[in-house]
Parts: sequence; C-alpha cells; structure tokens
Amino acid sequence: MSVASLQVAIRFHPPSYDIRVENVPIPEITHPDDAIVKIHFSGLCGSDLHVYRGHEAVDKMQAKFSVAQSAGLTLTRLLVILAVMSSSARLSNWDRASVCIPKDSRHFAGNARFTCRCIQSKLFGSPALEGAQAQYIRVPNAGGTLFNLSDPDTWPLSTPKQVSDSSLLLLADILPTGIFAVIQALSHPKVLPVLAAAPWPLHDQASSDMLGLFPKENVPTFAIIGLGPVGVCATISLLDQLGKRQLPSGFRIVAVDPIESRRNKMRSIYSKVCDSEVRSREVFAVQSIEEAKETVQTWTSGVGCSAVLEVVGNNSALALAYELVQPFGIISSVGVHGERPFPLTGGQLYDKNVSFGFGRCPVRSLFPMAFDLLIKRQDIFGGVGDESGLIDKIVGFDEAVEMYAAFDKGEVGKIVFDPWKKT
Amino acid sequence: MSVASLQVAIRFHPPSYDIRVENVPIPEITHPDDAIVKIHFSGLCGSDLHVYRGHEAVDKMQAKFSVAQSAGLTLTRLLVILAVMSSSARLSNWDRASVCIPKDSRHFAGNARFTCRCIQSKLFGSPALEGAQAQYIRVPNAGGTLFNLSDPDTWPLSTPKQVSDSSLLLLADILPTGIFAVIQALSHPKVLPVLAAAPWPLHDQASSDMLGLFPKENVPTFAIIGLGPVGVCATISLLDQLGKRQLPSGFRIVAVDPIESRRNKMRSIYSKVCDSEVRSREVFAVQSIEEAKETVQTWTSGVGCSAVLEVVGNNSALALAYELVQPFGIISSVGVHGERPFPLTGGQLYDKNVSFGFGRCPVRSLFPMAFDLLIKRQDIFGGVGDESGLIDKIVGFDEAVEMYAAFDKGEVGKIVFDPWKKT
Repeated sequence: MSVASLQVAIRFHPPSYDIRVENVPIPEITHPDDAIVKIHFSGLCGSDLHVYRGHEAVDKMQAKFSVAQSAGLTLTRLLVILAVMSSSARLSNWDRASVCIPKDSRHFAGNARFTCRCIQSKLFGSPALEGAQAQYIRVPNAGGTLFNLSDPDTWPLSTPKQVSDSSLLLLADILPTGIFAVIQALSHPKVLPVLAAAPWPLHDQASSDMLGLFPKENVPTFAIIGLGPVGVCATISLLDQLGKRQLPSGFRIVAVDPIESRRNKMRSIYSKVCDSEVRSREVFAVQSIEEAKETVQTWTSGVGCSAVLEVVGNNSALALAYELVQPFGIISSVGVHGERPFPLTGGQLYDKNVSFGFGRCPVRSLFPMAFDLLIKRQDIFGGVGDESGLIDKIVGFDEAVEMYAAFDKGEVGKIVFDPWKKT
Repeated sequence: MSVASLQVAIRFHPPSYDIRVENVPIPEITHPDDAIVKIHFSGLCGSDLHVYRGHEAVDKMQAKFSVAQSAGLTLTRLLVILAVMSSSARLSNWDRASVCIPKDSRHFAGNARFTCRCIQSKLFGSPALEGAQAQYIRVPNAGGTLFNLSDPDTWPLSTPKQVSDSSLLLLADILPTGIFAVIQALSHPKVLPVLAAAPWPLHDQASSDMLGLFPKENVPTFAIIGLGPVGVCATISLLDQLGKRQLPSGFRIVAVDPIESRRNKMRSIYSKVCDSEVRSREVFAVQSIEEAKETVQTWTSGVGCSAVLEVVGNNSALALAYELVQPFGIISSVGVHGERPFPLTGGQLYDKNVSFGFGRCPVRSLFPMAFDLLIKRQDIFGGVGDESGLIDKIVGFDEAVEMYAAFDKGEVGKIVFDPWKKT
C-alpha cells in the first residue's frame, strides 16, 4: 500500500482502555451511494466511553461483521465534514457538511421522517461502520445522510457562516437530541392543554361546555434530569421554546444533576440567556436530586411536573422522573437505556397515567430546528473553553491517549479533535 | 333502624366468592357536597371479578378504612342514576344522570381536566366508597361527579331520549375508556404525521425543505389487543374516528383476541358498521394472536403498526403490543396493570423509540365524545342480548349469586342489574 493511500486515525483496540494513533488506509467507495469525506472535526462522546471502558464487547461484534480483532476500531459518531472527496455527482463541491446516522429514506416504509430508525441505519464508530476520529471516512447512503451547510439553495435559513465550525459538531447528535427531548414533551397532547390553559382533549369542540369546571390557573412545570451536554442543550431549547410561547401563567423549570460542576455550568449558561433577552414570568432553578424533589413538591402542592425530560439513561433517572412527574404527565426519555429490568411496574404507570416517549433522536429531521437554535445561541454554543461553553478544547490526534483517559475520569468536558492539527 | 330506611343491595363478603343479597341502610348525606341518588341500572364489571375472586384483599383494605369485615361491600362502579334524592339545590330534579369516579375539580391544581386523577378521587365499589349494586348510593363531590343527561341547557348535543337507558351504563366507564385508548393514539404527535402523510415534526415550517426526502405513500395501520367490552368500544371508536378523516391512503386495523366468541362478536359488530355506512379504503381483520403477528408483518413489510391499543392489562398483552408496534409508534395502554415486573427493558424501549400512554380514562372529560358515539351507534350499543350488542341481559338482584358465578366462568357477557326488578 502506498503512503499516499494512508491516513492518521485514532484506533481503539479491544478489550478496553487501549487507544493508539495509527496509520490506516483511506477508505474507498464500496457502493454507488457512498461518499468519501474529509473530516474537519470529530468529537469524543459519552458513547465512545462505553466502548473505551470495554462495556460493549467490540471484539465479539467485530467477529459478527467479519472484522479482524487486530484491526482495531475508529470511534465516534460526532463529526463535521470539511469536504466531500469523492461521491456521486450530486454531492460534490460541498465545503462544509454535517452528518447523521447513515440511512436510506427509501427503506423505511412510509416513515422515513423517523430518520434514526431506518432499517438500513448503522452507527458510526461501531463494528458495523468506522467512526470519525480519522482524517477521512466513508459515508454510506450519503444522499440521505450528509447535510450540506454550504449551499443556500438547500439551506433556507440565514447564513451558515455566522456559525463557528466547532459548534457544528453539536449538530451531529447532541443539540438535536436535546431538542428532541423538548419537542416530545411540548407537542404531547397531554401537555398542550397545560400550555394553552385549555381543557383536555384539545380540539374537542363538544368539551367547551365543560370549561367552567376547570380552573384556568396553572403554571406549566418542567424538570430536566441530567445536565451533561445533551441535558444542557435540552434546557436551552426548553427555555427558548417556552419563552417564545408567551405563556399567560409563565412557567417553572428545575434542572437537576447530582454533580456540582455541571450545575455551575448550567447556572452560568442561564445567566447568558438572561443577559441577552428580557425574560419574564419564569422560575428557573438548578438543583441536586433531593433539592429538586422538595422544590417540585412545593411549587406544585404535591401534584408534580407537567413533563420531565430524562437525559441520563439509567434506572435511577427513570425512577426519579416517575417521582417528579404529575398524574397525566409525560416523561420524555432520550437517555440510552440498557437491558436491566425496568424500574417501574405496569401498575405504577397505570396509577399515575404516565405517558412516555423513549428513544434515539431522529437527528436528520431536526436539523432545521437545531440549526436555528445553534445560530441564535452562538454565545453559548460558539465558544471553546469558556465557563458557559459546551466545548472544552480542540486538540490534535497526538493528545488522543491523554484525552480519552482524562474524559474517562471526568477531568475534561467535551473534547473536539482536529485531525489536521499538529502540536 | 326502621324498615323505611333500609334498601336491598348485592353484598360481597371477603375473602372470596361470597355474594349475598341483603338489606342494608339507605345512605345518608355526610358532607355538603354529597348527593343521595336512586339507582336505575348498575353493572357487573371485570374489576368486580377481581374482588369476587379474592385478589384484592378487601378485608385488609376495609380495616384501613375502619369498616367492619362483617359488613361486606357493595361492588361496581358502573351505574345509571334514575333520580337525585337529596343534595344541594343545584342538583335536584334530575331524572336521568350518569356518574364517574367522584372527584372535586377544585382539588387538582390546574389539571382538573384529567378527571380520574383528582387527589380526592375514590372508586365506587371499593372499601373507600360503596358501589352501585344497590337501590340508593351516596355520591361524594356530586357537583363534579354527576352528569345530568336530562337538562338540555347543560347538554348541548341532540336529544338524550334517543338513547336506551341500559346503554347509558356504558357511559360510566366502558365507552369513554375505549375512546380514551383511541384518542391517546390518534392525537399523538408521532401518529398525527402518519395520518396527515406529512413529515415529522408537524408544524415545523423549517422542515418543509425536507419534504422531498420522505415517501408520501403510507397506510396508517392499527392493532387493538383485547376484544372485551372496552376493546370493542375502542374498535368502534377507532373505525368512527378514522372514517371521519377521509385519509388519502385509507387505513388498516387488526383487532386481536385469543377467544373465538369475542372475535365473532367483533365481526358481527363490524358488519353492522358496514351495513349502515359506505366504508372505503379500509382493511379490517379480526384475528387470533398468531394470525395478527403475521398480518402486521405482511401489511407493513415488517415495519409494524403506527399505534397499538392495549386493552387487556397484563404483561403478555404489553409484550405483544411491543412486538406489533413500529419504531416511533405508540402503545396506548388502558388495561389495568398489576405489580408484576414490567415485561420490557429500557433498552428495548430505546431501541424501538416506543411511546406509551398508560392509565385510567378521565371519564368525565370524555362524556361529550362518548355521548356522541353512543347516539350514533345505538344500533350496536342500544340492544340487549343480541348477537352484536354489548349488554347480554338485564336481571334483578335475585339472580345476583348466579350471575356472578356465570360471569366468573365466562358463561355470560355484560350483565346489567335492575335493582327494582322482581322476577
């Protein structure tokens, strides 16, 4: 193999904690819908940690996909693309693009809008598909997967150049997932009447005769459980969405995390929101778990939250969400859950009339909303390394081993790799 | 106690299978919001069977409410009221009324529209509140609980006299619960786009640029699991709601029950719907569990149902609902679930992006919709004892012991008691 066909990539080697920076082949097109793209930035993501810690049995999965174990694996699904190197004609000449889970809209029987559950989808950074901590990657089903941020004809919103390149990384997963948690809650038919101070069910004309029965005073109340990057994005999106609605009774939000540093970051982000906008009739608290239980109790006289956003993905977060939600409330769960027994019984769910929305964000469908918020809140998303920013630092691959170890220990926040940076 | 203050009631005596017809005191007003009402009809309900079979530890619950065990308990929450005997002035002179779970709209902190989860609610036919298999009962919080079917001023729909008295019993729980299962599904933000053949999320103007990505052809597909009286009502309501919408691609429904007699009743009810209306572009199947799995597989090329209505209330019904629902579909669960471990993990729910709505129907809020359907489909709801009717027979209290035993064995369908009938 000639040197020209090699690139530098960060490789994980099973079973665990083994990260190496290696020369590997530049990928080639293997299917007419593929594109080979040049990476601008790639992320280091909580999901990558699961692999790094050896929780995902990558070697067994590699065997399933007929990949030799010695080959290692390039991680991460977070990426921004600098250029499309080769592809079908339709995709060429992009100079900045974002990407989501590869999918083919023709293969999801009338439901292609739910882009993350295409039956052809594969995760970048899994044994099924090499991830983006490299200089070049292959993108399958590129027509439906890549999103061109440089073409004003396909992108109707304002000029993308207002947006910092590193912040585009948030588009690949984190920001849309936060927005997904919010719209699952706010568009729910049992939350809409609370926001409208109208009787349930909405749009039932016959029920207008019952209006007199229902007290009009209510303050929509929300909890967000988990203030990692996705939880922070969910909170920013919730503040944005509720702020736009000019709710007659205002609203209340409690953002919950057991880790003090995360709570402090959330507080300084909220200050930025308040500095830049006139906010009114809203109550916003950032609290520990025990504080939040008391706060919701006091705010709602024991009734509970209209909706709870669960952005953690474990059983204690689900159980807390159940405790905080009101009867007929919704738990919007975007945390990645495992195979442990569910912490609630059907009887508990029946007794509280709980609604749930579970699962992975359909990122591609939410790009327009996410991009809108990304532009609007560049003061938060655009910075690197500042107190209220979501991205901690941008480093070259030569710092990869150190950064994985530091991220694993919680010593650094969100890391972005620049595959072209030399230190 | 004088004979004039006694009435006849059906009494359950713990621990199980002990039904007696006894003289008990006529209840008296104990709170200013109470009403004493004269019963027209009372039902025999699946929930009553749980008590009859000794599954609910009534004696322990009675001890909690300081009721002597020897006193027995009057069951059922299904009732139609002939007259209000005594109450505050606002309620007097009603000659026909329906009733739901007692609640006080002032006590649910801005969410009184979710009528079944008022913090003051009590179930008729539980140790907390005597049920309706009697000649007279006490109705707490009568202003918010009773619904006057005789006053054209409070009832804006067409003349209630079109409706058979026995069919009004269905208003107390069964018919609204079926409708609840349907509207939880049809108003869900992930089902609305399927019905509208529009991209998700609806009302996101920015997403219109993505329209080209999404195939427009899709046939909304539904499953109903469980064809007891509530499941039949859910099916009739679903046919009615979908029929009204004139969906461009039509729709498909599979109604599922393992019991052949229930499937046959469902089929003859569907024939009545077809006889009375021009139906088009709908596919309707009534099937066993294994047949339904195959049918959904074939209809949707393996994708699954847009929504599944779970009207059973056990783990095998929940697991079947999960199997039949598509990724991003909704399971509307109105079955009464117990305390056994939930049959699905968070990982399974995440992996399929499942949405759930659980719980008890807010009957009072759905009276308008239920009454509308009750009038429209008197051909189905109005009859007694016919092949496609929901009510099997109307009997006096002297047949109570026999009817409980027959209902327990599945030998009779829905039984209605007339407390004034002498045989």
